[in-house]
Amino acid sequence: MARKWTIGDLEAAAERLKNWGRFGPDDEIGTLNYTQPEDIVAAARLVQKGKVMSLALPYDSKGPQGAKSNYPSLGRFNPIHLMLRSGSDAYSGVLDNRKIRTADDVIIMPTQCGTQWDALSHVFYGNQMWNGYDCRSVSSFGAEKCGIEKTKEKMVGRGVLLDIPRMLGERDLPDGFAVTNELLDKAAEHFKLRVGRGDFLIVRTGNMEAKLASGSWDGYPGGDAPGLAFETLDWLHDKQVAAVATDTFAVEVRPNEIADVVSPFHWIAIPIIGLTLGEMFYLAELARDCAEDQRYEFMFVAPTLPITGAVASPTNPLAIK
Amino acid sequence: MARKWTIGDLEAAAERLKNWGRFGPDDEIGTLNYTQPEDIVAAARLVQKGKVMSLALPYDSKGPQGAKSNYPSLGRFNPIHLMLRSGSDAYSGVLDNRKIRTADDVIIMPTQCGTQWDALSHVFYGNQMWNGYDCRSVSSFGAEKCGIEKTKEKMVGRGVLLDIPRMLGERDLPDGFAVTNELLDKAAEHFKLRVGRGDFLIVRTGNMEAKLASGSWDGYPGGDAPGLAFETLDWLHDKQVAAVATDTFAVEVRPNEIADVVSPFHWIAIPIIGLTLGEMFYLAELARDCAEDQRYEFMFVAPTLPITGAVASPTNPLAIK
Amino acid sequence: MARKWTIGDLEAAAERLKNWGRFGPDDEIGTLNYTQPEDIVAAARLVQKGKVMSLALPYDSKGPQGAKSNYPSLGRFNPIHLMLRSGSDAYSGVLDNRKIRTADDVIIMPTQCGTQWDALSHVFYGNQMWNGYDCRSVSSFGAEKCGIEKTKEKMVGRGVLLDIPRMLGERDLPDGFAVTNELLDKAAEHFKLRVGRGDFLIVRTGNMEAKLASGSWDGYPGGDAPGLAFETLDWLHDKQVAAVATDTFAVEVRPNEIADVVSPFHWIAIPIIGLTLGEMFYLAELARDCAEDQRYEFMFVAPTLPITGAVASPTNPLAIK
Amino acid sequence: MARKWTIGDLEAAAERLKNWGRFGPDDEIGTLNYTQPEDIVAAARLVQKGKVMSLALPYDSKGPQGAKSNYPSLGRFNPIHLMLRSGSDAYSGVLDNRKIRTADDVIIMPTQCGTQWDALSHVFYGNQMWNGYDCRSVSSFGAEKCGIEKTKEKMVGRGVLLDIPRMLGERDLPDGFAVTNELLDKAAEHFKLRVGRGDFLIVRTGNMEAKLASGSWDGYPGGDAPGLAFETLDWLHDKQVAAVATDTFAVEVRPNEIADVVSPFHWIAIPIIGLTLGEMFYLAELARDCAEDQRYEFMFVAPTLPITGAVASPTNPLAIK
Repeated sequence: MARKWTIGDLEAAAERLKNWGRFGPDDEIGTLNYTQPEDIVAAARLVQKGKVMSLALPYDSKGPQGAKSNYPSLGRFNPIHLMLRSGSDAYSGVLDNRKIRTADDVIIMPTQCGTQWDALSHVFYGNQMWNGYDCRSVSSFGAEKCGIEKTKEKMVGRGVLLDIPRMLGERDLPDGFAVTNELLDKAAEHFKLRVGRGDFLIVRTGNMEAKLASGSWDGYPGGDAPGLAFETLDWLHDKQVAAVATDTFAVEVRPNEIADVVSPFHWIAIPIIGLTLGEMFYLAELARDCAEDQRYEFMFVAPTLPITGAVASPTNPLAIK
Repeated sequence: MARKWTIGDLEAAAERLKNWGRFGPDDEIGTLNYTQPEDIVAAARLVQKGKVMSLALPYDSKGPQGAKSNYPSLGRFNPIHLMLRSGSDAYSGVLDNRKIRTADDVIIMPTQCGTQWDALSHVFYGNQMWNGYDCRSVSSFGAEKCGIEKTKEKMVGRGVLLDIPRMLGERDLPDGFAVTNELLDKAAEHFKLRVGRGDFLIVRTGNMEAKLASGSWDGYPGGDAPGLAFETLDWLHDKQVAAVATDTFAVEVRPNEIADVVSPFHWIAIPIIGLTLGEMFYLAELARDCAEDQRYEFMFVAPTLPITGAVASPTNPLAIK
Repeated sequence: MARKWTIGDLEAAAERLKNWGRFGPDDEIGTLNYTQPEDIVAAARLVQKGKVMSLALPYDSKGPQGAKSNYPSLGRFNPIHLMLRSGSDAYSGVLDNRKIRTADDVIIMPTQCGTQWDALSHVFYGNQMWNGYDCRSVSSFGAEKCGIEKTKEKMVGRGVLLDIPRMLGERDLPDGFAVTNELLDKAAEHFKLRVGRGDFLIVRTGNMEAKLASGSWDGYPGGDAPGLAFETLDWLHDKQVAAVATDTFAVEVRPNEIADVVSPFHWIAIPIIGLTLGEMFYLAELARDCAEDQRYEFMFVAPTLPITGAVASPTNPLAIK
Repeated sequence: MARKWTIGDLEAAAERLKNWGRFGPDDEIGTLNYTQPEDIVAAARLVQKGKVMSLALPYDSKGPQGAKSNYPSLGRFNPIHLMLRSGSDAYSGVLDNRKIRTADDVIIMPTQCGTQWDALSHVFYGNQMWNGYDCRSVSSFGAEKCGIEKTKEKMVGRGVLLDIPRMLGERDLPDGFAVTNELLDKAAEHFKLRVGRGDFLIVRTGNMEAKLASGSWDGYPGGDAPGLAFETLDWLHDKQVAAVATDTFAVEVRPNEIADVVSPFHWIAIPIIGLTLGEMFYLAELARDCAEDQRYEFMFVAPTLPITGAVASPTNPLAIK
């Protein structure tokens, strides 16, 4: 269903959609700038029943990393949680010389092991990244430019859910299913939404729920998947959304729409448009709730952790209705 | 300034303030239950200028862990941020066989190394924890009960800032300064607030800002500090706040108000009252903003990361006005 | 082939084989004491051709942890190797302000993820460990008693290889195959060795090589395996070996020889006899060499890393002939 | 005391001392090739009293990383040791459903945090490393060339100790004290040694012992120090030693002998000569023993851990006499 494109198309998109300089020469957060104070005020008005829904997967050893995949993401692993002190120590009396019985712990995790936001330092186009910064500003010392910490007061605004499988009467979309511009427009109409400037667009494919139901993540981390078509880069650019997030591993449809290019949508979205991507969002509960009350918009608050120089962050995104 | 108490007082407080069973026999989140849907709707109405302020310290090697202290917190360290791939690799061409140039990274951090929420599994009273659970349910395998992941849809409500040094005309409160019930009442009146059921109470001492200004964290992580007096446990219990957070390392005043007991406030607040504590909140910007617009209440959204079995979580708390 | 035993047999073995006090009330290294200076001198005399063979598996992401298994070892994972600086950074010029171009790195690993020595703090018998120490001396703060660092000047002596499958004319022993006292005696005779006081006994089963040849570790980490029979505890105790190591995950035969007891050999070997166990030793090259020159004894040097309070250590054991 | 050199001298040394190709075009271990089987046999003959001495610092939180320094080594930290299971859990009964009571643990450590061997992939000269390999073969994915695992059957041979302060009648050498060729020759004569092909040369400065005695590592990790003079590169090259190790942080004298070059000795030793360096060796006990029996040579066995692609390895070096 996904159309095939060429390297030439990729290069043309890079020219056509380049937002470098649009938010000033020193900008490091791209389209997150689209969300304005009045949008935040308006988003807060969407809170009408006081219900909070988490869009995060649990961070634990049962996460998707390490499962089999066609395009494995080298080096990522599931969170490793280790205790510094525990209730076993308390019970054993070994904490009593400390005069308080407490537990402490440590987490070791790739920033992109579960539900997460990419920073604009996550993907390079040639030797450059967003706004024309040199890719070498992201070295082993971390990201000097476009680190995730630059977004620490962003990720608040109006969230809109486009639930594609529900519109189509399906449980979930099959691998390789491309969500096209036409489908996005049709979904917006179907769910009576106008997607626009500064919105946080959440697109459901049902892919994560299918994996959870199957009891295996095989195929999920870097494998074939439903997702946004390459052409939606123009749509997202025109709509001026702040960010886009899905319930898949990498937002875009797979197999890749361009031969010999992995994740062509990423090549353009992040370094060229400056578009923040959210991945592995858990959308089952939100989707049910929206279907029930027929309201597909909500206040969306999904803070990043300001890890200095990080190229991504885990997040617990909240939809508040 | 802090009054001295005895072990007997501690035990009496444990009897007097015990909330076990109050939220049902299976409850794992304590006073977070106080925040009701209508409170969340009302909190959202406080968003009037569309301004988002982060209350998080940067997570990096310059954090407070490892500084000198009277009561050092064994085992905690500052975040260690390591790259899985970087722009240097991109520039060097070593990623090109992957057909996309990306950066990835890893974070190693104690959950309580910086701005954080304690879970109710963080502190034990004897061999029990919140709601009477056996402390052995928090073993080296993590917290089976009261893990931080149970709070993933909480931490949303009305935030209220009590800026004690500003009320007193000081830059910051000195070590050992006890914020008493009387001061809390006076501050609420001064800032024209009614602190009540389900609120997220933020108390500023100026302690963190003083350390940041000095260029050294020495004395901060576990040292003497200004903070809430032991007696405020009754005040917080009566007000039915959802949680309380400060800009200090451990919320409560130090030196400890009871001889031979470390952190007596913690002994009662977490396992007995079921009160969630937030620590190391960065309050400088929020305090300035509140002083400017004279509005000390705001929408507060501070999600935890749902790390399964964790006894705390880093957080990027947002104050939205 | 493995005989079945009862809990009563286990308890009887604990009484019969208990070495507590044998090496003094403060001893923390057990049978490693058996190796005397003269044994080390004699072992050095075995070096006759100047050949060094490593008995270590590579420490990397292709190690055995995480493979499927009947008795999975909770929490262990393969080594995670991360760079602090690299040649990519050098090439990119980002190191030049440091005036030297260097690479640095970090390793995150369970001490027992690959080729390793158990410390005597690794296994408890009831609430006690080796020499009668309280198991609570091994808390979240590490092992106060019997930590691996106590062995830092041990692990040097005469190594003897008993190559069971070679004696039997097999490539490797099947899962569940018990190496009995009779077989050990027969092998010593076959290979013209006298196993005795202070020796480092290496028993080959071929199990690791079979897994390596198959391309999958499934079944290896905690699964059914060939290995030492429970009865060999008496044999090892009588011979007064310093330590015993094999090419399997856990030395002993599996399925377990006692119902409802996991690793009964471990219950006795480590806390009762004080016998150090080496696991996941790579024996292919050594076995070939011994078959060629028909010398099954060698100088054996396998230092532990003195990680304070650790209950085990990775090691690169060297057989020197 | 250290002579001052120029960049021109550095470049001349690089031409003069370049060993590229000497051990074949595919060599990855450099001067470790100098040690021949007969040297190992001879080294074993030095074992005469059966005494084993460890030259390793404990790996723990009291190590030298993080101390103040003039040339801090970015990113290194002391080992972090965490338990996966402990005796506290055993005592608490939470392991009993596992049918065995065991402790397990995890270590997180820079490979160069304590006593360690550098791999030849640790330092680059321009865009090249040992034997002319491209520095980009050491990327975020680790060292494809000259990884430490290539040395896994090396590090065995004759060790010789040159105890400079003892010869000079001092407890330790002061910072900035350069151990020159003349001093090395004088020491060899003094201690009645002929340093030659394939030897593992251990040079004591007393620097580590001075820091240990002072109770503070300040100044040690990357600070001014006594050490080998730049001119000793020629001496070491001529003698054809296999490796050189000291009790200092970085082998060479500091302040740096060339303006605007950090660690000029490293620039030549590792990538040009292919000389393996050992750092932070604990020499106090060995030095005492050698002084007692007046034998400054011994069997030396200091295996690296074969961590695939690592640029260094912790080690527990053993001197066996």
